[in-house]
Amino acid sequence: MLAPEEQLRIIKSGVFEIKPEELLIKKLKRDEPLNIKLGVDPTAPDIHIGHAVPLRKLRAFQDLGHHVTLIIGDGTALIGDPSGRNSTRPQLTSEQVAANAQTYVNQAFKILDPEKTTLRHNSEWLLSMGLEDILKVTGLFTVARILERDDFSKRYNGNLPIGVHEFLYPIMQAYDSVMIKADVELGGTDQLFNLMAGRELMEKMGMEPQVCLTLPLLEGTDGVRKMSKSYGNYVGLTDEPADMFGKVMSIPDEIMVKYFRLASTLSVDEIDSIEAGLAAGELHPNKVKRQLAANIVAAYHGEEAAGAAEADFDRVFKNHDAPKDIPEFAADLTPNDEGKVYLAKLIADAGLAKSAGEARRLIDGGGVKVNGAAIPAKEYNVDPSMLAGAVLQVGKRKFVRLA
Amino acid sequence: MLAPEEQLRIIKSGVFEIKPEELLIKKLKRDEPLNIKLGVDPTAPDIHIGHAVPLRKLRAFQDLGHHVTLIIGDGTALIGDPSGRNSTRPQLTSEQVAANAQTYVNQAFKILDPEKTTLRHNSEWLLSMGLEDILKVTGLFTVARILERDDFSKRYNGNLPIGVHEFLYPIMQAYDSVMIKADVELGGTDQLFNLMAGRELMEKMGMEPQVCLTLPLLEGTDGVRKMSKSYGNYVGLTDEPADMFGKVMSIPDEIMVKYFRLASTLSVDEIDSIEAGLAAGELHPNKVKRQLAANIVAAYHGEEAAGAAEADFDRVFKNHDAPKDIPEFAADLTPNDEGKVYLAKLIADAGLAKSAGEARRLIDGGGVKVNGAAIPAKEYNVDPSMLAGAVLQVGKRKFVRLA
Repeated sequence: MLAPEEQLRIIKSGVFEIKPEELLIKKLKRDEPLNIKLGVDPTAPDIHIGHAVPLRKLRAFQDLGHHVTLIIGDGTALIGDPSGRNSTRPQLTSEQVAANAQTYVNQAFKILDPEKTTLRHNSEWLLSMGLEDILKVTGLFTVARILERDDFSKRYNGNLPIGVHEFLYPIMQAYDSVMIKADVELGGTDQLFNLMAGRELMEKMGMEPQVCLTLPLLEGTDGVRKMSKSYGNYVGLTDEPADMFGKVMSIPDEIMVKYFRLASTLSVDEIDSIEAGLAAGELHPNKVKRQLAANIVAAYHGEEAAGAAEADFDRVFKNHDAPKDIPEFAADLTPNDEGKVYLAKLIADAGLAKSAGEARRLIDGGGVKVNGAAIPAKEYNVDPSMLAGAVLQVGKRKFVRLA
Repeated sequence: MLAPEEQLRIIKSGVFEIKPEELLIKKLKRDEPLNIKLGVDPTAPDIHIGHAVPLRKLRAFQDLGHHVTLIIGDGTALIGDPSGRNSTRPQLTSEQVAANAQTYVNQAFKILDPEKTTLRHNSEWLLSMGLEDILKVTGLFTVARILERDDFSKRYNGNLPIGVHEFLYPIMQAYDSVMIKADVELGGTDQLFNLMAGRELMEKMGMEPQVCLTLPLLEGTDGVRKMSKSYGNYVGLTDEPADMFGKVMSIPDEIMVKYFRLASTLSVDEIDSIEAGLAAGELHPNKVKRQLAANIVAAYHGEEAAGAAEADFDRVFKNHDAPKDIPEFAADLTPNDEGKVYLAKLIADAGLAKSAGEARRLIDGGGVKVNGAAIPAKEYNVDPSMLAGAVLQVGKRKFVRLA
């Protein structure tokens, strides 16, 4: 294994916070594989490269020789993680959870090394807990401690209901850390409370506590809001190569390095050198962004597909002849009550389809692209930020630039 | 069965509150035996006539033809009822709970009609609940609703810890009402929140909710504080007949009628007539109090023992010769830091024992009485209100009146 200091340098790349760092160093100094935990709430099956940020960091730990325990929260999913929510989540059925979990795992193993991954389902220990066991564990936390949680205190002080069952969530996922004897637990910054609860419970139960490692949320392709399916600013792990390439190419230059650190397969040294090159003006941002896009496509679809996606992108966007031919269309991007623009109607207004109905069918068939990325079926309403100044393409030949 | 209105009159005697009364009338009008619930937390084995107040009311329901379900809270006792507490109760072991429960049941059947009583242990359904079941039930309550509970909100606002497991208490005992399909649940006024939670849960689970019936707390023999072993102002169900008689005779006249309503076996008509007789000055308070004392002793030890206890009491106190002979002793009744007077030293100071050590041994042997009631073994420190103006007796012949 690499020296602890060198390991720490690699681990820290892109990380928001390590609590406490000294304990991580102490653990690394033992020169034995650590057990790195990631708990996954299988509430939504499709994952995007924002969700994949902790998976990439797990992979970095694996490449350093450590072991990963991926916990599918099929037990906790019956509660629903209240993190960052201002209302109670609908409780899922076991069938929904199982289906979501399978889809998630298939996608996660595009990133993780299966040889160094143990897959566990927390239903294994949580669903066999009886009232007595639950009382023993919940008795180790106070109501005030759980109410300190940012989202809970906001809801409590705002007179929004919190179900008593939601109080059990952070405690039960903390119990996961006890069960698998985690050395480090990873999560987004919004998971810090849950991670710290795991640390606290391990200590209260007389174990060496885990180190909590949080990763920043990845901004979506708009560079402003966090990546989310509902904002339409995401790059899905199962997106087609050309879409994926086009979407990454649409991100603002300012967040390229962050994307490299959190979403690419490049080494820390390579990223450090890119960052320095950009800062010194030695590297051209557009060239760097193409490298990023190609890397991300290759990670999920292979080198060949990445090459083809890049060529496809060039044909449409880089080819200096084509853009000149694209007519401009002064689109009305005023959002509706839900903050969206009805894209189907806009397509018809721009003369790219005979009616909004036809435009909807074209969207469903994958024939509508914005900046080279296909609009998913049924997404007839999109975020205006996606459209401003973008190239709207219908079929192979019809283009307008939205002005 | 009696007419609903007549039943209601009997049920209401001595009761603090019925919520809602209209629903009780509706249930009574069905002219079928109702299922009356009392949940018992077997945390302390010995019970006194204050604890027995709801048992007496259950007996009244039984005498009207209704059925009682007595729930031994051996499941909930693993949590510990937080009612009226300002700190977390220590959690009991299953063995302690089982032993306490047996002692309680033996005493409860001195009052209840076994033919009309079903004994259930809530461990039967609570301990077989898994996480999923617990989530379903706890999800029907909000954190804010449970924090409304007087004792919880006091602790929360006073920064005193509340264990998360304590939140499960009112919910789990509410679930008892669902399991046994209670029509009415009885409890002390301090149990109103728990009772209402049962009502709420039954409604949320689509059942006809129970009626909540609360009974006032019974003052102890000092007539001021609630009856409690720790205040030394209690009449235990297993007290010897003479002690029991003497203790009841020591209560202030003002609370006699309340004792009749809550602790005697007399009918509502008899009690109404006693209350009227006292108010009109037609009955002598002392004579009435003797009737009360004799009734309570007879209820637990039989008529014969009651007669003997009364004769014993007369020999010492009523005999006009004896009191004249009793010397007065100006005792120092200044309480110590714990609000108690060290009785053993007082006995020695009064010349009734050679030393505090000897006085302690006399107390342990049952040879020390205050107003005819023996001081229990090891109770060397007593409440000053018990002693002011009282006759202190050591052995058969030594008396002083404390001035």
